[in-house]
This record gives sequence, structure tokens and C-alpha cells, in this order.
Amino acid sequence: MEQLSVTKAFEGELHRYKHSSSSTSTDMVFAVYLPPQAKNHSVPVLYWLSGLTCTDENFTQKASAFRMAAKLGLAIVCPDTSPRGLELPGEHDSYDFGSGAGFYVDATQPPWSGHYRMYSYVADELPELIEKTFPVSDKKAISGHSMGGHGALVIYLRNPGAYTSVSAFSPIVHPSKVPWGQKAFQNYLGADKDLWATYDATLLIQENGANTPILIDQGDSDSFLEEQLQPNHFEAACARANVPLTLNLRAGYDHSYYFISSFIDNHLEFHARKLMG
Amino acid sequence: MEQLSVTKAFEGELHRYKHSSSSTSTDMVFAVYLPPQAKNHSVPVLYWLSGLTCTDENFTQKASAFRMAAKLGLAIVCPDTSPRGLELPGEHDSYDFGSGAGFYVDATQPPWSGHYRMYSYVADELPELIEKTFPVSDKKAISGHSMGGHGALVIYLRNPGAYTSVSAFSPIVHPSKVPWGQKAFQNYLGADKDLWATYDATLLIQENGANTPILIDQGDSDSFLEEQLQPNHFEAACARANVPLTLNLRAGYDHSYYFISSFIDNHLEFHARKLMG
Repeated sequence: MEQLSVTKAFEGELHRYKHSSSSTSTDMVFAVYLPPQAKNHSVPVLYWLSGLTCTDENFTQKASAFRMAAKLGLAIVCPDTSPRGLELPGEHDSYDFGSGAGFYVDATQPPWSGHYRMYSYVADELPELIEKTFPVSDKKAISGHSMGGHGALVIYLRNPGAYTSVSAFSPIVHPSKVPWGQKAFQNYLGADKDLWATYDATLLIQENGANTPILIDQGDSDSFLEEQLQPNHFEAACARANVPLTLNLRAGYDHSYYFISSFIDNHLEFHARKLMG
Repeated sequence: MEQLSVTKAFEGELHRYKHSSSSTSTDMVFAVYLPPQAKNHSVPVLYWLSGLTCTDENFTQKASAFRMAAKLGLAIVCPDTSPRGLELPGEHDSYDFGSGAGFYVDATQPPWSGHYRMYSYVADELPELIEKTFPVSDKKAISGHSMGGHGALVIYLRNPGAYTSVSAFSPIVHPSKVPWGQKAFQNYLGADKDLWATYDATLLIQENGANTPILIDQGDSDSFLEEQLQPNHFEAACARANVPLTLNLRAGYDHSYYFISSFIDNHLEFHARKLMG
């Protein structure tokens, strides 16, 4: 691992690293915020998955999360949203596919397979690396925004017991049925709809249920709400599966990090109650 | 004025505008955060001046300031750091001069004179426009970072009674004596050292004193501390002028917005006590 930077924030430290990933067969960059408590004892970890076009830095710079993380004693790990540096054909042609848009799946279709394996990277490789390297406990939670909200819900639902809690901002809850998800799944996963279903939070929760209450915040002035997000599908599936869901529809808020920053403290407190309760 | 965007944050609203400036004879962009209290009554205003290379967006995206501003009922106005769109010879050649580096002076030297008039823009034109347009009171305070900390101190010291308080993060306190300031002053103001002195906080406070306590935060791991910032000059001048200065030297913090975000709440509370006391 190569340490790219260490920056003090709220008496804790934000570290960035580059490492060679066995999941993606590329270098990957991630950030980890270590709260001041990590100097004295191991702390639980929240994994934050970002949305389309993002890197690890969108959350660290714009979410206003470290004040509360420092108060609660919570580490936050922010992976990138795709492998980088591959220069695959078409990789950089659109904002919603390829670089910056790994969709937290393990691609099966060339040329993406073998590299675009963000599911394995985030669900398996990264937590193992984090727990081996930093003063953290094995208690972990997961959250994310938009494409990252989809990733958080899917990784949580496919790994029962691995995460104490899950939340999301403006998640893509039913990717099989919306343009962003269909484009990504068709290209990364091919035509196999059964495989698509293993990466679709609405279908997963219908099938498997969930062990803990789920928290979602969604702005009602989000320009992607109607076409791409449609949280009503997930809400209905949770009701059918008898999973407690708090879906906060926030009047006047959009899809931006200004929205996330406005409610991130609530999400951190939600996770801290489970992680430390 | 052209409204570029309105974004909800912490139940208040972040507005961005473009307007034709009589100070710079260009269009200028600024942001204003209106806390939720502004729906019901006029609120006081903090002016935030950014540093080298910044626009209005560095503070709005990275400072984590709106949670506390919303709690306190404080509007925050963020101007740009230079005129834009002029394409003057050499304007974009360096990060510390020209575009993004107006240094909050009224240039007297061609080709900068007539356009690079950020002192008049921030001290006179912008507050008049803000007070005419938004639900704000005439109570105002001023703060900033690095080059913007210099701007805040100078504008405060040259306009006694206009601002209820001033604070700064990592300010350039003695521009006449450090490379950043000397380069800017030589090019914008020419060789006249008496004119330089009117834009030098250390010399101004020596000459005129100040009416209110001043708050400065400075990271002791700031890579610009020794060469460019040297707060000891300002500290000594305040002592000689009998002006109460709180200079917090923060162990381990650097020059970034992560540092600002870590202590911005303290600064907002400092200003709110004066603005609303």
C-alpha cells in the first residue's frame, strides 16, 4: 500500500492510499477517516459508496461528515467507484457507464470482466484490507448515494450478518427497471436477468428479507427521482417482506452533496446506535 | 442579476448569481447562503473571502459551514476571488497572480487597473447589492482563508464600524514582506510602498488599531506558514496596538479546507455573538 496523504480533520486523520487490488487487477485508491478515538482503541467502520462520476474525494470533501464521525468515534471508508487506468474501449465515453460507474457488480462481459469487479472489491477485499491495516473492529455498517446507495443496499442484503446496519441517500433501488441500471447491467452482466436480480435491492429484499431496519433519505426535488430512483418500489417490497423501512422524503432537496450534508449526521447516528449499541 | 441556481441545504437555501459589476466592469458570480430564519426576518451576514485559485464554490462545498449557519441564523456571502473572462496578457499564467488571485486590492497598474478592483467590489459594491436584494440586516462580519484572510483583515481594518467582527484562517497577515504579497502588490499596485501599506493588515493595525477582538486560526503543519503567512508579525502588531487577538495555533493541521471545516463552527459562533449580541 502506498500512502498518498494524511490530513488532520476534527482531531482525527483522513488517510488516502493506493494499493494493488486482486479484485480489479488494477491499482485502487481509497480514503479512510480515523476519528480521534482510534488512537486509543479500535473503532467500528462505516463504508460509504459514492455515486456516478465520483471518486473517494466527493464524500470526504463535501459531505460534512467528519465532525459527527469524530464525535461518535466512527471510522469512514470511501472507495473509488470503478477501476482506473485501464483505457478499455468506450470506458470514458459516458458519465453513467465505465469509469466512475462500476455499479458495484462483478462484470461477466468482456472487456469489463476481470477488472470491473467492484462488488468483490467492496464486499470482500476492501474490508479485509481495512481490518488488517487500521485500528478498527470487525463491526461495520454500509451506506451510499445514488449508484452507491444501490451498492450499499445490495451488499448489505447479500451478506446477512456482515453489516450491523444499512442506509442510503437517493438510492437506485430497482436497477433492473430503470435506464441507469439497465444500461449498466446489460453491458457488465449481459442478458441474464437472473444474474441482474442478484444486484437489485428491490428483488433481493423481496426474496430474502432483511434483519434490521433500513434508513433512506430522498429529496423530493431530485431531478432523477421519477426516472431513475423510484423508491416506491423498494418501499413496497419492504412492506411485503415485513422489513422496517424509514423512507424520509425531504421537501425541496435535490440530488447533490448539499442534500447529503444536511442529513448525514442522522445517518451516522443511526449507524452508531447499531454499531455501538 | 441572473440566478444561476438555488439549492436547499439545512432547511435554508444556497443561491448563486451572476451580475454585471461596476467595480470590475465584468460579470461577477457570488453565492449566498440564506438560513431558514431568513424566511421570517432579516438576518445578519458573514462575508467569506476565499484564497488563491478559489471561486465562490470552495467554501460552499467544502467548509461544512451551513449546519451551524442554519442553527445560528446567519447568512454567508461568498464572492469570487478575481474578475473572470478578461483574457488579459499573463492573466492565467500562475496560480498566485491574475485569475483566482485578485488579492482584494484595487489595481492601479495596467492591464489590471479598471478590472482587478476586488477591494471596491467586496468592501462596497457587494454589500450594497446584498442588502438591497436579500432579507438581510445591515449587521455584517467578515472572514476568510489565506489570501482571503488577508482580504478580510484589511477590509475590516480600513472600514471601522462597518463590520461587527473579523476572523481569519491561515491569513497572509503581512503581504508587503512575503513572496505572495510582494508579487501581487508589485504587479497590481506598482512600486509605491505607501499604497502597499494600505493593504497590509500588520501595518494597518499598527497605524490605526482596531475596535474589537480578532480571532485567527492557523495550522502548525501548514506548508505555507513559515514563508508566506508568519502570523507572528500580526501578533506583535496587535500587542503593540493593544488589540485583543486570539491566535489559535492548531497542532497538526494544514492549509486545506479540512482544517477550515474543523474550526469553522467556532468562527461562526464568534461572529454570531457580535452580530446578535
